[in-house]
Amino acid sequence: MASDIKLTFLGTGGSWPAPGRHLPALAIQIDDVLNLFDCGEGTQKQLMKSNFSFMRIKNIFITHFHGDHFLGLPGLIQSMSFNGRKEPLEIFGPEGVLDIIPRTLSLGYYSLSYKITVHELAPSAVYDFGKFEIETLGNDHTIPSLSYSIKEKDVMKIDGDKAKEIGIPSRKLEKLRSEGSVLFNGRTVFLSEVLKGKRRGRKIVYTGDTRPMESMVKFAHKADILIHDTTTDSSLEPLVNEYGHSSSRQAAEIARDAEVKYLYLFHFSPRLDALSTLLDEAKSVFPNSILSRDLMEVSVKVSKEIIPVD
Amino acid sequence: MASDIKLTFLGTGGSWPAPGRHLPALAIQIDDVLNLFDCGEGTQKQLMKSNFSFMRIKNIFITHFHGDHFLGLPGLIQSMSFNGRKEPLEIFGPEGVLDIIPRTLSLGYYSLSYKITVHELAPSAVYDFGKFEIETLGNDHTIPSLSYSIKEKDVMKIDGDKAKEIGIPSRKLEKLRSEGSVLFNGRTVFLSEVLKGKRRGRKIVYTGDTRPMESMVKFAHKADILIHDTTTDSSLEPLVNEYGHSSSRQAAEIARDAEVKYLYLFHFSPRLDALSTLLDEAKSVFPNSILSRDLMEVSVKVSKEIIPVD
Repeated sequence: MASDIKLTFLGTGGSWPAPGRHLPALAIQIDDVLNLFDCGEGTQKQLMKSNFSFMRIKNIFITHFHGDHFLGLPGLIQSMSFNGRKEPLEIFGPEGVLDIIPRTLSLGYYSLSYKITVHELAPSAVYDFGKFEIETLGNDHTIPSLSYSIKEKDVMKIDGDKAKEIGIPSRKLEKLRSEGSVLFNGRTVFLSEVLKGKRRGRKIVYTGDTRPMESMVKFAHKADILIHDTTTDSSLEPLVNEYGHSSSRQAAEIARDAEVKYLYLFHFSPRLDALSTLLDEAKSVFPNSILSRDLMEVSVKVSKEIIPVD
Repeated sequence: MASDIKLTFLGTGGSWPAPGRHLPALAIQIDDVLNLFDCGEGTQKQLMKSNFSFMRIKNIFITHFHGDHFLGLPGLIQSMSFNGRKEPLEIFGPEGVLDIIPRTLSLGYYSLSYKITVHELAPSAVYDFGKFEIETLGNDHTIPSLSYSIKEKDVMKIDGDKAKEIGIPSRKLEKLRSEGSVLFNGRTVFLSEVLKGKRRGRKIVYTGDTRPMESMVKFAHKADILIHDTTTDSSLEPLVNEYGHSSSRQAAEIARDAEVKYLYLFHFSPRLDALSTLLDEAKSVFPNSILSRDLMEVSVKVSKEIIPVD
């Protein structure tokens, strides 16, 4: 049975730390695989305060190589080693990752107790991670930068009544679902014969740093959660756009047009004290807007929606 | 007039962060110059919580290149740049510093708004910083590592009565003290004629990571404050020594033999919850032992002790 997707915001600020706001990092557990998105300075300490064990992280996805999004990596990597990690770790990022990550991990004296593999991801590509996929979108930022969509694969749902009618024993149903056909009573039964539809896989989109982009509307379409750059409110829009970021108004327009369920505002300028203006502004465009907060936990339950198979 | 030396413990843990303990960093302000000793991950955030402005740091001294002692540097350096720093910054460290610091500061995309100069310091050397000196001692650790002594220069004290007797106007006294002689009433008056003695300069010693060393007794002699590696209590002494560290008992023995005023226990293993055993043990050897705590502030007042000039 699929379980809740669990997400913890580890750091929600941008540029440099502000009171109550660490630098960008998100932990997302899907199908018991713990993934980290971005790793600002202080992420290891924030992980230790969270309900996730930092030792269990399997994949790390970096959106881009501005320091606030990745300078927590060497400390985290070395602490895993201090604690005797043996499991391999995968690190993913945009153009430049194959150069920057090895240099980041070569600083100072330490010995690594496990294997790290670094992967460069292309923009507008889909990568298979078993029960989920990672899709990328090239951001409109000042340097190479990726948005990530973490998407659970759709799950085929068998119509129990039809299966019963044919007489397929329940122990053969999983094989039928996963392989598409099963041999039964001397004949091949195809999945299509008993298919009820499919359960839509859950989808979370994390933009990292980006200006508002038309292509994000399609990329984030129908996401359960969109976590979008909202560096300031719209009063500073020209400036914030110049630096490659979005305002809360712009993020909310994308959330509305993409028909997502919830928008989490994220990556707040350290110059901001109160964030209520950002929230008010976003809500006036897209009511399901929420301010992300350090160590906030969010669960995405299994969808009950069954949709037709294409 | 000389003012208090102000010290803030920014992080007091070792290896990796523990609840309530960030990684090693000490800010010491002497004669209005703000110095940072070590810069573990999270130091910029700790500085922002302290009474010091991170923008005012002039000199950074790194004891050695284990990650917990320097991985806060790139974030701090980049945040200073984000905030428009123009003043040059000096970074000092042991063998390896000229290679490791430039690599540490070359990570990711950013532009630096100020000049950084990196200096390699030798062990057992004295460096002049104007009104204070930095002295180094090679540690007994697993990699090249330095202890630092930050020592205010002794200040010559003029006997007011003698000066009055000769008739030197008070406006000439500062010149007499700083230059050693002054022309007055057609003759040269020498400082030695009116000297009362000298005020002993204050001294703070920070070891970074080290096994107990006999040479530390002389190095830390009569220090106002000794901040010494105390990774665990003595029950784990063989292990802790093997890894290049000291126990609280060993640190206290050095403090006692060096006749320091106060010993601050520092660099606690993240595996320790309560630190009371370390303190009890240290106090039984050296009563003026104190547990350092994150964001603890300490002032060292101007000494009233006048000692003879050699």
